[in-house]
Amino acid sequence: MKPRLLEIRKGVLEKNDLLAEGLRARFQAAGVFTLNWVSSPGTGKTALLEATLKQMREQGQRVAALVGDLATENDAHRLARSGAPVRQIVTGGNCHLEADMIESHLARSGWDLNDLDFLFIENVGNLVCPSSYDLGEDLRVVLLSVTEGEDKPLKYPSMFNSSDVAMITKIDLAEAVEFDRAAAYANLETMRPGLRVFETSAKTGRGLTEWIAFLAEQRAARLASRSQG
Amino acid sequence: MKPRLLEIRKGVLEKNDLLAEGLRARFQAAGVFTLNWVSSPGTGKTALLEATLKQMREQGQRVAALVGDLATENDAHRLARSGAPVRQIVTGGNCHLEADMIESHLARSGWDLNDLDFLFIENVGNLVCPSSYDLGEDLRVVLLSVTEGEDKPLKYPSMFNSSDVAMITKIDLAEAVEFDRAAAYANLETMRPGLRVFETSAKTGRGLTEWIAFLAEQRAARLASRSQG
Repeated sequence: MKPRLLEIRKGVLEKNDLLAEGLRARFQAAGVFTLNWVSSPGTGKTALLEATLKQMREQGQRVAALVGDLATENDAHRLARSGAPVRQIVTGGNCHLEADMIESHLARSGWDLNDLDFLFIENVGNLVCPSSYDLGEDLRVVLLSVTEGEDKPLKYPSMFNSSDVAMITKIDLAEAVEFDRAAAYANLETMRPGLRVFETSAKTGRGLTEWIAFLAEQRAARLASRSQG
Repeated sequence: MKPRLLEIRKGVLEKNDLLAEGLRARFQAAGVFTLNWVSSPGTGKTALLEATLKQMREQGQRVAALVGDLATENDAHRLARSGAPVRQIVTGGNCHLEADMIESHLARSGWDLNDLDFLFIENVGNLVCPSSYDLGEDLRVVLLSVTEGEDKPLKYPSMFNSSDVAMITKIDLAEAVEFDRAAAYANLETMRPGLRVFETSAKTGRGLTEWIAFLAEQRAARLASRSQG
């Protein structure tokens, strides 16, 4: 039975890739820079995203967020405190977001993509399933908290290998958990040579300014390449 | 395409359940008490398992472990320091262990189940996929670290609902991360009323004595019910 299952899975992925390409074209046409945040449960995605949305809004950036979870709308409520438009995608049993969920929730959101500069997608907390699903994002960001162990890049190769940026979170706890920074960086570099790494703390705000400046640069570069292309 | 995929998945699960029942019968016949440890990546499963194996061996218990990961044999090397027999199951892309992997690795291990009192299975770090796969265990243990947030039981309902015991890990960090014990217990109780909860720290050893005494009791109760049955 395995080959048949694999074949169907391949079909599901191909369909997802086509939808993701359509989304990517729409995002680029509207000038929306889109990020797909992936990580284990509990790395602090929501806390960091809330802080990011808040600071970016204060700087006049037009931001919105879609947030995926198996169950509960808790994260959407938390993110909404930033003042940004937010929609929860409850996936039921599904351990990842798929392009068609993004498409249908955007349609139902009533958001005009032309009114947005950045769209943040917070994926389901899972270091395996989301790696195969393109959501049409410009940047895939993998979060790794100092509390979960420096070896995670080696143990979840496809997630780290498919990401464009790594974010080390909860850096305020580094000392308490004896975080081995050199080992973490070496393992990230092994999995994805040249990966850009940020260190942040949603609690103290550390690293946020640099991170947000990076996002603005990335969007500007994308817009410039579009106008040339 | 969805119904067809679901149907095949159902077939895979039914096959897994049959194999798991076979394993359970073998474990019970041999008097091996078996645990399936599930959690997010980075909750400290391996550290706690290493400490558990070490202490149980010192008490004369005959213990062994199977440990699953997508990639690397790191965890088997770590666990082997306890002196217990250990085998790594590298799942490739698979985000969970399945009964047939347990069966084939036991066959290749050369272990005689009659020589074991406890078999520990450390699943792949994932709060979604492993929940549907019975491995023939007597007890499913879900680990939740104080660093990952008290809301996880609500967000990963099937994993917490299908577990028999919850282990709150890294309790030594509770203060540093402002762990809300009452909220964590309330969320666990909501998902699985009556769930037995332990608090442990592999670093300080806290909670280990109580946990190991509980395992010995559980095995004794299982053996007593078998001799009556």
